[in-house]
Amino acid sequence: MFTVRAQCANSLGRAGTLKLAHGRVRTPAFVPLATRGAVKGLDAQEVAGLGYELILANTFHLMLAPGAELVQELGGLHELMRWSGPIITDSGGFQVFSMGHGAVADEIKGRGRRREEEGRILSIDEDGVRFRSYVDGRERFLGPEGSMAVQAALGSDIALTFDECTPFHVTREYTERSTARTHRWLSRCLRWHEEHGPKQQAVYGIVQGGVEQDLRRESAQAVAASRCDGIAIGGSLGRDKSQMHEVVSWATGELERQAPSRPRHLLGIGEIDDLIACVELGVDTFDCAVPTRLGRHGVALVPEPQARWRVDLFKGRWSHSREPILEGCPCPACARGYSRAYLHYLLRAHELTAVRLLTIHNLSFVARLMGDLRAGIEAGRLAEVAAALRAGAAPQDSAA
Amino acid sequence: MFTVRAQCANSLGRAGTLKLAHGRVRTPAFVPLATRGAVKGLDAQEVAGLGYELILANTFHLMLAPGAELVQELGGLHELMRWSGPIITDSGGFQVFSMGHGAVADEIKGRGRRREEEGRILSIDEDGVRFRSYVDGRERFLGPEGSMAVQAALGSDIALTFDECTPFHVTREYTERSTARTHRWLSRCLRWHEEHGPKQQAVYGIVQGGVEQDLRRESAQAVAASRCDGIAIGGSLGRDKSQMHEVVSWATGELERQAPSRPRHLLGIGEIDDLIACVELGVDTFDCAVPTRLGRHGVALVPEPQARWRVDLFKGRWSHSREPILEGCPCPACARGYSRAYLHYLLRAHELTAVRLLTIHNLSFVARLMGDLRAGIEAGRLAEVAAALRAGAAPQDSAA
Repeated sequence: MFTVRAQCANSLGRAGTLKLAHGRVRTPAFVPLATRGAVKGLDAQEVAGLGYELILANTFHLMLAPGAELVQELGGLHELMRWSGPIITDSGGFQVFSMGHGAVADEIKGRGRRREEEGRILSIDEDGVRFRSYVDGRERFLGPEGSMAVQAALGSDIALTFDECTPFHVTREYTERSTARTHRWLSRCLRWHEEHGPKQQAVYGIVQGGVEQDLRRESAQAVAASRCDGIAIGGSLGRDKSQMHEVVSWATGELERQAPSRPRHLLGIGEIDDLIACVELGVDTFDCAVPTRLGRHGVALVPEPQARWRVDLFKGRWSHSREPILEGCPCPACARGYSRAYLHYLLRAHELTAVRLLTIHNLSFVARLMGDLRAGIEAGRLAEVAAALRAGAAPQDSAA
Repeated sequence: MFTVRAQCANSLGRAGTLKLAHGRVRTPAFVPLATRGAVKGLDAQEVAGLGYELILANTFHLMLAPGAELVQELGGLHELMRWSGPIITDSGGFQVFSMGHGAVADEIKGRGRRREEEGRILSIDEDGVRFRSYVDGRERFLGPEGSMAVQAALGSDIALTFDECTPFHVTREYTERSTARTHRWLSRCLRWHEEHGPKQQAVYGIVQGGVEQDLRRESAQAVAASRCDGIAIGGSLGRDKSQMHEVVSWATGELERQAPSRPRHLLGIGEIDDLIACVELGVDTFDCAVPTRLGRHGVALVPEPQARWRVDLFKGRWSHSREPILEGCPCPACARGYSRAYLHYLLRAHELTAVRLLTIHNLSFVARLMGDLRAGIEAGRLAEVAAALRAGAAPQDSAA
């Protein structure tokens, strides 16, 4: 299902092709979030039009509404969303545990506060998590087999196994116990999938192990030793970017030794510098709320490393600016000539049009960046391309 | 600026072409609202793509934010919105008076409650209305000359003169006094425009007169006797549709006698049966929040007269429906195959994608309906086309 087309000589970076039930995906690739079955504000055809081949939908949210049975009855998630390409579904583990140690989500996802919708955990045991639904207040249960069953009903191309996303501020012992349970759940998920899962659905195991080098390595070995089709890297990745890159390198380094031909997905990471760094560390696919969430908050992605690749159009300094979001950007928002002043005004006026235009711009920016990284790998010059992007080169999508 | 291309033999219905500074508009036409400088959720190119040639923006809201001076500094409203076609701006009279007799807006616009954003009137006199801005709490003033100055700065193709939108539940005497003042303001607006207004900007006077036949007729005569380029019909149009159609017929009947070659705009009317009826009464253009506002509330327009051409996709009965919004509809939402069940689910999940798809569908539906009415007039068979649409025929845009 995965072919490495080009491998960097000086790094773990590689370009490949994922062959999935609904089509192929050129990697490295960013995967936009269609959390509840829609990329917020866009429809499926627009997402495809921005150059995306793979999207991620959320098991936890979709099992609560509209419900896995209903999605299945309506022809599956592809049919429901009218998305004809591949879909990856997460396992729901991250969301279901976030209800309990809410702070984990905040740490990893950079959120300031717990969201109301996260519901409430009632109990956790070896079989999974009992919780109260934020949709209707009913008691629900999610565990390894249940997660796989939901993902089978949704009909995704890639299912993720059920895991506990280990928090950061826990003891080594906690991390150890939690990681071991994630490995037991991996076996249960694979067993369930073998007996009941759709044959054409790929399954990714998840590497945990927190920020402990030996636990990350062991986890990577354990997952690589399983029959999973691909491998995701999850959990707490550390307190800052340099630790995060180190933790990812432990995992990908071990995976390169143990399972070089299996695709690797990094969960929940997607800031521009992290995408560049982790492509060099051998990650094939990434999902993250950052580009779309920033857009909803009025922030546009621009090639300005010193500003974390961000410009906040909500700020008063843009009220008179006739500049486009990004000069020369081919995305529909820039190509149509909307000025920063217009977007600033629309954001302040709470007009949906602004959110949508910024979402489109940001997703286009990231798609072009990933295209450049792919092209760099294929041309044997990833380091050069990465250095240029890090220095503030505008992404060109040279792979298009 | 206006050419009648076809006139019905048995009704006042007519098809024409408006030639404006930024292009031509085929009439009869519906005019979508870009109240604050954007059709909610869409960008200008998308609105044009749905077949619209003219949009309406709001003087009151735009003078408060971002402000007329800033819009002018940024190159005018066309440049700001990146809309290359004609724009009509209302005068702000409706909004500014709505702050005082808020109930007027509710009566005419079918709103259940006053909106917070409507601010507060401080005083009204012969020169205009002093009020408190809902944006920043500052004291502001709007009167005939000020309204024309704002519209000049916005650079619209059609400016409306400043009027008082007479409420429904007032005495005949109040209506008489109010209408007389609107006529004095018409003269002041035209004088200001002649001295200071952009030469290429057309000015429409406004017929008031409430539901009094003689006052409506006199108002139509007074406006027709002025040098205005076109004529809008405003104010309270009655307690129900049949009274509304009667009031419109008084105005258009008189205008047909006094100023047959000037274009006629009906303010704030846009339900499907009203569009059909008022085209037969000789209205050339219409603006209304209905198609876009319904979309934001989950209601789609469908050819079902017995259901007021509406289907409420928020309702539970659609949760399992694989039907599209409207079978055979060529709009992007229907053509891409989104089901009622998907839209229902997205509406319940508060996903913006649903609002946007329904807005697109509704605007496309109305554009096609108006196209059919135009084609009917041009073919000398408006009565037949109107009867078919009233009986539930799906609009085909036979004029396209």
